[in-house]
Amino acid sequence: MADYYTIRWVDGVVYMIDQRCLPHQEIYQKYSDVMGVAQAIHDMVIRGAPAIGAAAGFGMALAAQSSKATCVEDLMRELHQAASVLHDARPTAVNLSWAINHILSQLETYLDADLPSIRQLVITTALNIAEEDVKINQRIGQIGSELVPDYANIIHHCNTGALATVGYGTALGVIRCAHESGKKIHVYVDETRPRLQGAKLTSWELVKLGIPHTVIVDGASGHMMRTKKIDLCLVGCDRIAANGDIANKIGTYNLALAAYCHQIPFYSVGPISTIDINTPSGDDIPIEERNSEEVSMIGDVTITPTNAHIANPAFDITPSKFITGIVTEKGVAHPPYINSIKALLN
Amino acid sequence: MADYYTIRWVDGVVYMIDQRCLPHQEIYQKYSDVMGVAQAIHDMVIRGAPAIGAAAGFGMALAAQSSKATCVEDLMRELHQAASVLHDARPTAVNLSWAINHILSQLETYLDADLPSIRQLVITTALNIAEEDVKINQRIGQIGSELVPDYANIIHHCNTGALATVGYGTALGVIRCAHESGKKIHVYVDETRPRLQGAKLTSWELVKLGIPHTVIVDGASGHMMRTKKIDLCLVGCDRIAANGDIANKIGTYNLALAAYCHQIPFYSVGPISTIDINTPSGDDIPIEERNSEEVSMIGDVTITPTNAHIANPAFDITPSKFITGIVTEKGVAHPPYINSIKALLN
Repeated sequence: MADYYTIRWVDGVVYMIDQRCLPHQEIYQKYSDVMGVAQAIHDMVIRGAPAIGAAAGFGMALAAQSSKATCVEDLMRELHQAASVLHDARPTAVNLSWAINHILSQLETYLDADLPSIRQLVITTALNIAEEDVKINQRIGQIGSELVPDYANIIHHCNTGALATVGYGTALGVIRCAHESGKKIHVYVDETRPRLQGAKLTSWELVKLGIPHTVIVDGASGHMMRTKKIDLCLVGCDRIAANGDIANKIGTYNLALAAYCHQIPFYSVGPISTIDINTPSGDDIPIEERNSEEVSMIGDVTITPTNAHIANPAFDITPSKFITGIVTEKGVAHPPYINSIKALLN
Repeated sequence: MADYYTIRWVDGVVYMIDQRCLPHQEIYQKYSDVMGVAQAIHDMVIRGAPAIGAAAGFGMALAAQSSKATCVEDLMRELHQAASVLHDARPTAVNLSWAINHILSQLETYLDADLPSIRQLVITTALNIAEEDVKINQRIGQIGSELVPDYANIIHHCNTGALATVGYGTALGVIRCAHESGKKIHVYVDETRPRLQGAKLTSWELVKLGIPHTVIVDGASGHMMRTKKIDLCLVGCDRIAANGDIANKIGTYNLALAAYCHQIPFYSVGPISTIDINTPSGDDIPIEERNSEEVSMIGDVTITPTNAHIANPAFDITPSKFITGIVTEKGVAHPPYINSIKALLN
C-alpha cells in the first residue's frame, strides 16, 4: 500500500495532494465547497486528465451536499451552476467535461426522487467515477505486469503514476504491480523535459513505493540501451488512434526509436477510454503547442537569450510500427492494430 | 563578422568573455597575470577544450611578459612554475596540457637566445596556438558548408561554436559558414540537458550571428523529423575512434538514432586532432560520469526528491554505423571509416 493519495473523499470533505509542492513537500489541501475545488483544478494543485475528472465529480458532490435548496428545481439549478464553474476551471481537459456530464445525465432519470436521494446520487456517482478509475488501473497493472520479466530494467517516460490518475497509475501501475508481485525490477526514469514530471513526480512516487530507480536526462536513454541490459520501455498514452499510433508526452517518440534500433520491447499503457476509434491515424491527432516559457524558464530562472525562438510541442506521435503492444484493462493489443484494437472495443 | 569573442590577446592583456554570465550578460574579464588566467579556467569563466588550451597558452605568455628574471635559468624556472599553476586549474583538459607542453618544447631549442627573444617566443607561440585553432575551424566550416543545402533545416546538439573554441566553432562553424555564404538556413537547437549548453550558449551565438533558429527540448528532435523537413544533423565530437565511432555530449546518440530511422544525414564535425587512432572503437572510450547535481539541480532549485538516485553520463558513444560522415579540416571521411580516417591522417 502506498502511503500517499492523489484525491480522496472523506466524510463529506475532499482532500488532494498539492502537486505544486512535490517532490519536496507532501501537503494535502482540504476542500469543502465547489469553488475551492474549481480553484484547485485551475491552479494545478491537481493535474492529469483522470485525476481532474475525479476532482470535478467531487466538486459536484460538494455542491449537492451543501445545497440549501428546498425543491428539485433549485437543486438542479445549483448543480448546473457548479458544473459551469468546474467546466471553466480548465476548459481543455476532456475528462473534466465527461465527469460533469456523466453526473448530470444520471440525474435526468432521477428527477422524481426526493432531495436527499438526489444529493446522495451525485455523491455516489462521483465516488464511483473515482473508484472505477482505480479499478481499471489495477487491472491494467495485473495484465501489464505479466510482460515484465523478473530482474527487468525498465525505461519509463513522463509521469503515469497515481498522481496522474485517481490511484495506482497506468504505465507506472504496471511497474508497481510487477514490484508488488515480488519481481526485482529497476526503473530508469526519463526526467521528461520541459515540465520534468519524471524527475519531480515519478521519482517521488517510486521513492514512496520503494522501487529502485535512477533518474536520467531524456537524451541518455539510448546510451543506457547501448551500455546496460534494458528489457523494456513503458510509457502512457494520451490518445490511441484506430491504427495503433499513439500520442503521448514529447520525447516518447525519441525513446521509441531508440528502443526500435536496439530491438527492445516498447509498450504503451492506458485505459480503453484512451482509444479514439474515430481518429484513423496519428497524423489526425492535433499536437498542442504550449507556452514557450515551459522551455525557457526553470523555476524563476530564464535559461535562453531574450531573442531566442522556442518551439514547445507538448506531445508527439509514435507510429504503431514502433510499438510492441498496447496494454489496456481488457488485454494487450498487438500488431496489426487495426484489427486488435477493434477486437478490444467489442 | 561576429561582434563577440571567446578569448583575445590585446597589447599584452588577455580578455575573455565570462561564459558564466551568458546568455543574459556579455561581460569581458581582463587578465594581466598568470594567476588570474588559472583562476578563470578553474572557475569556468572559459570552457571548451580548445578554448582552455588557448587560455593556458596566453597564461604562459603573461608569465613571460611580466617576468623580472635577469637570466635564462630564472625565466625558465618562472615559466615552469606558471605551467604548473595552469596545469592544476583543470587537470582533466587534454588541450590545456598540450598547449603548455607545446610552448615549453618550443623553448628547448631557444635556450641560447637573449631574454627578450625568449619572452617574445612564448607570446608568439601562444598567439599561434589561438590563431591556428581559428584557421582550422574556418577551413572545417568551408568544407562542411558544402554539405548544407540552401534552405536547409538543421538539428544541432550541445555547443560547438566560437564559445567552445578560440573562434568560429566546429559544427556551428559549418552552420555559420553556410549562413555567411548566403544560404537560407534554419537551426533547431537541442537545449542539451543537463548543462543546457544549447539553450544558453548556442542560442546566444546564433542570435549574435543573426542565424534563424528555434530552441527545442532534446526529446523533441524525432517529432521535428517526423513533422518538418529536416535536412541534416550536425554535432561536434570529443573523441573519434579509429573505426569512426565518436564520443560526444550525452544525447548525441539518441539524435543519431532518430536521424537514422528517418534517413536524415548525420555528420560529426571536429579537427583532425580529435581523432585518436590508438583507440580502436567507441567501446574503448571511457565515459565520464559527472556530478549528479548537474541533473538534480537547475540554478539553485532542486528538481528531484532527496532520495532519488541519479545517473549523469557526460558523453555517449555513437557507433560509426549511424554516422553519414566526419567533417575535418582535411576533408570529409565516409564509411568505411577504418580506411577513410587513416587516409585523412596521412
